Amino acid sequence: MDRQRKEGGAAARRNLFEGIPEELPEELMTILATGNGVTIERIVSKGQASPEGFWYDQETHEWVLVVQGEARLRFEGEEEIHLRAGDHLLIPARARHRVTWTPEDRETIWVAVHFS
Amino acid sequence: MDRQRKEGGAAARRNLFEGIPEELPEELMTILATGNGVTIERIVSKGQASPEGFWYDQETHEWVLVVQGEARLRFEGEEEIHLRAGDHLLIPARARHRVTWTPEDRETIWVAVHFS
Repeated sequence: MDRQRKEGGAAARRNLFEGIPEELPEELMTILATGNGVTIERIVSKGQASPEGFWYDQETHEWVLVVQGEARLRFEGEEEIHLRAGDHLLIPARARHRVTWTPEDRETIWVAVHFS
Repeated sequence: MDRQRKEGGAAARRNLFEGIPEELPEELMTILATGNGVTIERIVSKGQASPEGFWYDQETHEWVLVVQGEARLRFEGEEEIHLRAGDHLLIPARARHRVTWTPEDRETIWVAVHFS
């Protein structure tokens, strides 16, 4: 059956679509892997967006991929970008940006890789 | 329309499912982003597997996610692991492993993050 469970540690397989609660009052962040200055995380959104007037301003680069769902993201001074499943982009360090919309009726699943 | 094209550089959105040729005699590797000791790449497989007796033995860690399709992967001395869409795992540096199977009739799309 599920032999992988027996292998443990190194080869521990997990699934991106598992472990998501029905209700998501806040975005769910799950670290998937970390290394030397690198963090790979799953973000699950369901209707959340950045607060009005709030801009992310991060010290590290962030590569994001929308695996499921969709979202709208805006860099300061630029047009909104609509992201759909499979869309990915690099948010450079210090590029001020905000998430302006995610759908309320289904989960949007992101993979984000933070690196310097 | 597609305003993102005008924004260029930083905010260049791309899609993981685009730019895949119909025929894939070899695996297709596309670098999506790179940084300080980090490489994020897309791998598209269609029937490829590691040659008999060949083991990957990498100096860096590799986190892999199967976004579409499926694959079988084996670490030396361990049972085969069947990966389906959404499955992800960490392949630690120096963990000898091989891909034993990917389906021939459809594309398997991986995201791989190499880091130290």
